[in-house]
Amino acid sequence: MSSKLYHGAAWYPELWEEEVLAQDIELMKEAGINVVRIGEFAWSRMEPNEGQIDLSFFVDIISRLHANGIEVVMCTPTPTPPIWFTHGHPERMYVNEQGQVMGHGSRQHACTNNPVFREKAAIITEHIARAVGRLPGVIGWQIDNEFKAHVAECMCSTCLGQWHQWLEQRYGTIGKLNEAWGAYIWSEDYRSFDQVPQPGAAPFLHNSSLRTMYQQFSFEKIAEFSDEQAAIIRRYSDAPITHNSSVAFHVDNERLFRELDFASFDTYATFDLVPNYLINNDLWRNFKRGRDYWIMETSPSHAASLESYAKPHPNGFLRAEAVAAYALGAEAFCYWLWRQQRAGCEQPHGSVLSAWGKPTVGYRNVLEVEEARKAIEATITSTRPLQAEVAMTYSDRAKAFLKTEPHRSLNHRGLVTSFYERILNTGLHRDVVPEGTELDGYKLLFTPFLPFVSEAYTKRALELVENGGVWVVGPLSGGRTEEHKIHTDAGLGALDRLAGVETLYTFPMDDTGSEGTAFGVSARLSLWSSVFEPREAEVVGKIENGLTPGAAFITEKRHGRGKIVMLGSLPSGDEGELLLHRLILHYADEAGVTVRSDVTRGTIVAPRRGDAGDVWVVVNMDGLGGSVTLPREGVDAISGEAVAQGRLEVGRYEYRIIRFDN
Amino acid sequence: MSSKLYHGAAWYPELWEEEVLAQDIELMKEAGINVVRIGEFAWSRMEPNEGQIDLSFFVDIISRLHANGIEVVMCTPTPTPPIWFTHGHPERMYVNEQGQVMGHGSRQHACTNNPVFREKAAIITEHIARAVGRLPGVIGWQIDNEFKAHVAECMCSTCLGQWHQWLEQRYGTIGKLNEAWGAYIWSEDYRSFDQVPQPGAAPFLHNSSLRTMYQQFSFEKIAEFSDEQAAIIRRYSDAPITHNSSVAFHVDNERLFRELDFASFDTYATFDLVPNYLINNDLWRNFKRGRDYWIMETSPSHAASLESYAKPHPNGFLRAEAVAAYALGAEAFCYWLWRQQRAGCEQPHGSVLSAWGKPTVGYRNVLEVEEARKAIEATITSTRPLQAEVAMTYSDRAKAFLKTEPHRSLNHRGLVTSFYERILNTGLHRDVVPEGTELDGYKLLFTPFLPFVSEAYTKRALELVENGGVWVVGPLSGGRTEEHKIHTDAGLGALDRLAGVETLYTFPMDDTGSEGTAFGVSARLSLWSSVFEPREAEVVGKIENGLTPGAAFITEKRHGRGKIVMLGSLPSGDEGELLLHRLILHYADEAGVTVRSDVTRGTIVAPRRGDAGDVWVVVNMDGLGGSVTLPREGVDAISGEAVAQGRLEVGRYEYRIIRFDN
Amino acid sequence: MSSKLYHGAAWYPELWEEEVLAQDIELMKEAGINVVRIGEFAWSRMEPNEGQIDLSFFVDIISRLHANGIEVVMCTPTPTPPIWFTHGHPERMYVNEQGQVMGHGSRQHACTNNPVFREKAAIITEHIARAVGRLPGVIGWQIDNEFKAHVAECMCSTCLGQWHQWLEQRYGTIGKLNEAWGAYIWSEDYRSFDQVPQPGAAPFLHNSSLRTMYQQFSFEKIAEFSDEQAAIIRRYSDAPITHNSSVAFHVDNERLFRELDFASFDTYATFDLVPNYLINNDLWRNFKRGRDYWIMETSPSHAASLESYAKPHPNGFLRAEAVAAYALGAEAFCYWLWRQQRAGCEQPHGSVLSAWGKPTVGYRNVLEVEEARKAIEATITSTRPLQAEVAMTYSDRAKAFLKTEPHRSLNHRGLVTSFYERILNTGLHRDVVPEGTELDGYKLLFTPFLPFVSEAYTKRALELVENGGVWVVGPLSGGRTEEHKIHTDAGLGALDRLAGVETLYTFPMDDTGSEGTAFGVSARLSLWSSVFEPREAEVVGKIENGLTPGAAFITEKRHGRGKIVMLGSLPSGDEGELLLHRLILHYADEAGVTVRSDVTRGTIVAPRRGDAGDVWVVVNMDGLGGSVTLPREGVDAISGEAVAQGRLEVGRYEYRIIRFDN
Repeated sequence: MSSKLYHGAAWYPELWEEEVLAQDIELMKEAGINVVRIGEFAWSRMEPNEGQIDLSFFVDIISRLHANGIEVVMCTPTPTPPIWFTHGHPERMYVNEQGQVMGHGSRQHACTNNPVFREKAAIITEHIARAVGRLPGVIGWQIDNEFKAHVAECMCSTCLGQWHQWLEQRYGTIGKLNEAWGAYIWSEDYRSFDQVPQPGAAPFLHNSSLRTMYQQFSFEKIAEFSDEQAAIIRRYSDAPITHNSSVAFHVDNERLFRELDFASFDTYATFDLVPNYLINNDLWRNFKRGRDYWIMETSPSHAASLESYAKPHPNGFLRAEAVAAYALGAEAFCYWLWRQQRAGCEQPHGSVLSAWGKPTVGYRNVLEVEEARKAIEATITSTRPLQAEVAMTYSDRAKAFLKTEPHRSLNHRGLVTSFYERILNTGLHRDVVPEGTELDGYKLLFTPFLPFVSEAYTKRALELVENGGVWVVGPLSGGRTEEHKIHTDAGLGALDRLAGVETLYTFPMDDTGSEGTAFGVSARLSLWSSVFEPREAEVVGKIENGLTPGAAFITEKRHGRGKIVMLGSLPSGDEGELLLHRLILHYADEAGVTVRSDVTRGTIVAPRRGDAGDVWVVVNMDGLGGSVTLPREGVDAISGEAVAQGRLEVGRYEYRIIRFDN
Repeated sequence: MSSKLYHGAAWYPELWEEEVLAQDIELMKEAGINVVRIGEFAWSRMEPNEGQIDLSFFVDIISRLHANGIEVVMCTPTPTPPIWFTHGHPERMYVNEQGQVMGHGSRQHACTNNPVFREKAAIITEHIARAVGRLPGVIGWQIDNEFKAHVAECMCSTCLGQWHQWLEQRYGTIGKLNEAWGAYIWSEDYRSFDQVPQPGAAPFLHNSSLRTMYQQFSFEKIAEFSDEQAAIIRRYSDAPITHNSSVAFHVDNERLFRELDFASFDTYATFDLVPNYLINNDLWRNFKRGRDYWIMETSPSHAASLESYAKPHPNGFLRAEAVAAYALGAEAFCYWLWRQQRAGCEQPHGSVLSAWGKPTVGYRNVLEVEEARKAIEATITSTRPLQAEVAMTYSDRAKAFLKTEPHRSLNHRGLVTSFYERILNTGLHRDVVPEGTELDGYKLLFTPFLPFVSEAYTKRALELVENGGVWVVGPLSGGRTEEHKIHTDAGLGALDRLAGVETLYTFPMDDTGSEGTAFGVSARLSLWSSVFEPREAEVVGKIENGLTPGAAFITEKRHGRGKIVMLGSLPSGDEGELLLHRLILHYADEAGVTVRSDVTRGTIVAPRRGDAGDVWVVVNMDGLGGSVTLPREGVDAISGEAVAQGRLEVGRYEYRIIRFDN
Repeated sequence: MSSKLYHGAAWYPELWEEEVLAQDIELMKEAGINVVRIGEFAWSRMEPNEGQIDLSFFVDIISRLHANGIEVVMCTPTPTPPIWFTHGHPERMYVNEQGQVMGHGSRQHACTNNPVFREKAAIITEHIARAVGRLPGVIGWQIDNEFKAHVAECMCSTCLGQWHQWLEQRYGTIGKLNEAWGAYIWSEDYRSFDQVPQPGAAPFLHNSSLRTMYQQFSFEKIAEFSDEQAAIIRRYSDAPITHNSSVAFHVDNERLFRELDFASFDTYATFDLVPNYLINNDLWRNFKRGRDYWIMETSPSHAASLESYAKPHPNGFLRAEAVAAYALGAEAFCYWLWRQQRAGCEQPHGSVLSAWGKPTVGYRNVLEVEEARKAIEATITSTRPLQAEVAMTYSDRAKAFLKTEPHRSLNHRGLVTSFYERILNTGLHRDVVPEGTELDGYKLLFTPFLPFVSEAYTKRALELVENGGVWVVGPLSGGRTEEHKIHTDAGLGALDRLAGVETLYTFPMDDTGSEGTAFGVSARLSLWSSVFEPREAEVVGKIENGLTPGAAFITEKRHGRGKIVMLGSLPSGDEGELLLHRLILHYADEAGVTVRSDVTRGTIVAPRRGDAGDVWVVVNMDGLGGSVTLPREGVDAISGEAVAQGRLEVGRYEYRIIRFDN
């Protein structure tokens, strides 16, 4: 439970003159900024020439901030190695899939697996940790910045060598690799690990196992770098460590955060994509459970670079975002960035202050956030998010499978967000949980878009079912093995047996005229689909027309005290949405889900619980206003006035905090 | 005349365990598969290390198949050289137009002109031919697989050297090349052959002659490789040799098949693109005339890879395809593939069996094909396709010209298929004939989209005309010389004189408001066009509005007992289609074309002739049903019942075989 | 004042046989071609082997032309260095942004900064200048051809070295460069000039200063090459020198033409893009003021290459273009090209004659041009274009800023042409003036899309204002410094103070629902915008709704006897066009602009003045006809008949020349 809510911003004091810094600190206090993040790109200021390290500037800044009541998240500057590292060293640079070697400038231009990079990164991080690790005011650490945001899997020769080692470690013998990958196909098979290529230029597609495993290798190596950095910092500092990540980056966040202390993410969702914003909160709360997460970056108005800009937030939206975040479990709501960049390539990006030191178009919204933060801090810090009973699984490994096998340009993030939105719209309180999450406490579990369903995952899901829960599997789940092959025992491998079905066929359902009927609705079916014949299961959704009339696309089977539900296809169109809406509510009822409300679309209820009772934070997110039925009389936590049972209206971007005292 | 109809599938026994192989052979017999194609990607199984060749596995498989009544097309495995060939040898790999050197994995990654590749390919092929060439059950050979499907003209340094030799052979002196290409333009001209570049990176477009000739060089070199392979096989085997090609690949099929024994092709046309399917049959019948062709690959349901999938066939369509193919001259109808790939990059591709050994969504259609095959085999094998009287010329060399000069992203295949569809829709029985085909027996010849009309071609066409036939030339035909230059004697060179016209102007007709009137229809004119003034010709189609009102776009001139018709532009829109429909029928009438019917669109009549009389195979291809008028009473070849003269209806994907006995 | 109007064509005699040349010269006389441009790509004909230079062919051609009354613009052949220069010398070739090294063929394949290139170019140019520089008939020179049309900034290692020298010259010390670029951001900062990269491959965007300055370096280097060439020619010839440039190329035309004698440009605008054609004339008249410009290339019908073609001109349009050009200040109207290319990659391009020596579809229009040229020559050559009172600034440097920072794929040329079209449509006579132009004589100045407004420019604009003029600044103007940074003193730097405003915010106005009201119209606001609070200014346009209701988007401030008007945003949609229309007319009235008419859209009035009085050339450009009110009675300069005061109608593509004698 946090004792405080943070309202922060990224700050680059190394880029500005002394008079600006003094002004900045004063203005931060005016705006209510109580934490700043510094240092993430400042390597050349810290170590202008190789080995010549001087951190006094940052030590001084931190102490000045502290003196002014502003705390600090200190960053390691590794996304931007200085010119002394890069110049004349193409072998240290990132190489993309087209074989292009990156030059100096921009960021993430170095290969993070290069041994010299690792060495120099360790040195600078150790110096920083030693210099500031125990300074008062340093309340946290951020490693690097947005790992793999601009780059994906590096194709340099360092990586090639490490890839071979990684493969040897994973498979032991080259014969086992050939077997695991089915590499005999197309005479791809290797005689030794050093022959296995990176998935670079080829006339047609590479083997799916090669592509998926190379991503996994890259996931593990970047996490390994993060682990190394964290270990260094911990030798000199007790402050918790995070990384500002995102589901959009080429990382396995679950693995990455394993060795970090708290979760944080960056989000630039625009006002018209509210579910994209909310899913992040419902997900990142669960990367380090029981520990509040941070929104480490969001814009006070609009994201932008030289080549594009997003739609600016309407007035009022920022506060709704902040209140929603705090209510859903965020400890901090931080802007990128405090003062507009005067140089570089992100000059047009929204900020709190302009480059000339004046309020920006987002400024009044920042003040509204601060006002709200103060108003809700006591309530938020005395409660915790209520455990949801509904969970949807999120997997960055699944994202890698979809990158290898995008079907028809499918996008993992888009699929997942759409599915989440369907749950959100039912008013069920929900968690989005990383694949490896323990499932205790959940009653209803959704597992969509997970091509490989591991044994460990299945075991956890079955426990949930045995305890009376409902597990809904699909669409697109279960059809691939760990190495991205097709099962040879049954269409969905072990799932067939567990779900009491025979997967008759798997095929692309689009354009076949297939319709599915369930819960009183008929809808067109879409996506690569699995079609079932029940063995020990009941048919819940039956297919009409198309290639497989009479077969099932939804089945359910009792298991223990609960049910395993197979969802083999994705109903589409308006009717498809209705069918899925009913499916979600049907199984929520069956599973006995109680943490829910009838909140209207575009408005959320974030339930929290404290010693004194429960709290509902109701926030209108879509600017259209909304309402929810209060189950009993409550108290407005801000005004202290009673709020009657029944319909509670909230206006455009308005929020209300209703206490239901014990 | 075949004695048998084949129903086949591609099979990769080297990728599966023994128990799967045994099951496969049993299930093939159940499904009616009587021929399999094996070996095409199995080089690493045959020669896992350089020089260590063991073919016993395939010898054994062939004998087991034979014992089970299943015959074999044996393939050479050259599309996928093993890792011992590729590793550490970038100089042996294919290089694309962007200069990217291919790595191992995928297929067609080696340069087929590399001398080491040629040597190793010769060795493995000789071993295979020796080992299995005279085994009972080996009824044919396939060289390599889908030459140049994933790659086009290689840009490696081996190819550069051979290009120089090829040019020297073609032109003798560099001065002649400079003349032939007009290379003095832009100071491109060369002093020696070794200076002539490949058409790689350049600030703007390369010389058209360079681009077209480089394609021709590539065409000849891949055919040369095929010739070499065929010669090796023939030393050890009498079984006929083919290659599974396509009009979509970067080959000159006419040249490629010159040294092969029978034609075969791969097709993955979807159910909504019936003309694309039919044109293949009407074309491939004519690559090796008098010898039945094979459909070597088609999907029982849908094509797919990791990155895309096609629409699956509706039930019934596969049988219609198979019957149409057998009726139009195919000896074999073969699937890609028998058992779904469990690994690689084509895992989602349609197959007969799933990876887990069960029927796929296409399986019942495969059974329908087998039932039909048995029902029609006697009739088909006792007749041969009736010679068409209408021919349309197809040229892969023309495809190369269009690749060099695509006008506004014109696509050769699309243009040709559209023109074919217009003929198809008239109910005229037709051949699509390679450019070099002898034209005896034809009465009406269409020559669209042939930028270079050779003297030899013209001679054959004129003979047809002299014998009373009609030759329709254009659109887009005749405006380029053999080396892709513009004529300097007349707009269309010799054609102007032969057709009795003066080509006044050639220019892009689109967007000029030009309309053409002929056969009682006025239509918008489109495409790069030739506009005529008649000299000794009659005006058939006159232009109104636009830039050249009063000029002609269609002319005809008597020549011998027939006519030369110039079609200078492409009428477009619904009226344009009507105009072309009338044009085709008008000249079919004039030429006295009798092999025709009034079959409705979407249904075909495939006429055949045997000792006992004629046969019409009527097949509904579009799933909407159709009809045709029978000219006299016939007999249903399957039921043996009489069929009255007059209207014969066929239902959705239904087929009928009507015998008209002598 | 010209004594003659030229009607010309590009001719490539080195590519054709003697009999063709003789025919060409005869046909040129028939068509009225009185000037040809030769030699631009003929380097290999002039110097087939290194050092073996023979120019006798061109000397002879020039004398034959002269004998036939055809004058010559001689070109240097440097866009196409011969094979002896390129073969085996990748280090001499142009390298693009992706790092691809160009091969021989096409044009502009050499790096124009390569010292060997410079040396060889100097040698051939000196030989040419010496051989033909004083020949009768040589009336002008063209250096190279369309600099940087197909290429942009070269990334070769020669350029890298010269870039470093250029930077050192500009900044003196690396510290100053780091400061000027804000290079400390992202640890980009350098320790020495030789570390500064070219803006090649990077994971994300490069620093804006790096990108903008690299373009400026490239601008200066290509101009330096042009300067060198011009200096050589001047040693041997008094004929004036030009370059056939365009606003579409990657050059700074103002800098490029500084050392040249007259302006010329190439244009291929299609008939439906009349403003694109006219802006060129109104602009190029001002690159070398007081000296008539040339249209060095335009098509008699359509532009084309192997890969695309433009819409052909409707009959009549070419003459309208020619008359408009002569009337607006052109001395010459020249075609590309005389005879269709029979080889190369521009074979389908429109020409006067076909490759086979016959008239093309454009030919009759060429005859119409010649007829008009003769009819108007006396009037045109006895008058000069009347000085406009309205000017709009054009800047290729601004184009570079927009390339670095395209916002949302903004295109400088499109933005500028649209703004020009708004002025054109008011009937105001206008100049489009290069950024550095002296502004004497103007009353109303528009400065849109100029991110960096220099001190020198501001000084000239303020003088105009002090003398009673109106200066309208924006949209998108003033927000960047010379090095592409953001101001730190005020939103628009010094402009804020001068215009008496405070720029409150700069942000992307699209999608915010902001509306602006001014001149009685309300319109949606768009583009990256500046929002003002008046200090000493008046609000003219106020914002409603959106993020900043109540703020100003148009302000005006008295300054001297005139006004500074800030236009912070771009009104859009039909209402936006109306608003801008009224704004332009409002300030034209205020500024007392008198050189104007009420000509209807699609028709132009080109006012000229001579000793005898004024002349109006009225030309219908859109093919729809139009009209204008004559202020007093005039005389038709062609028929000699009186033309009444009041409405004068012109038909489809018709032109009239009305003399208003003193």
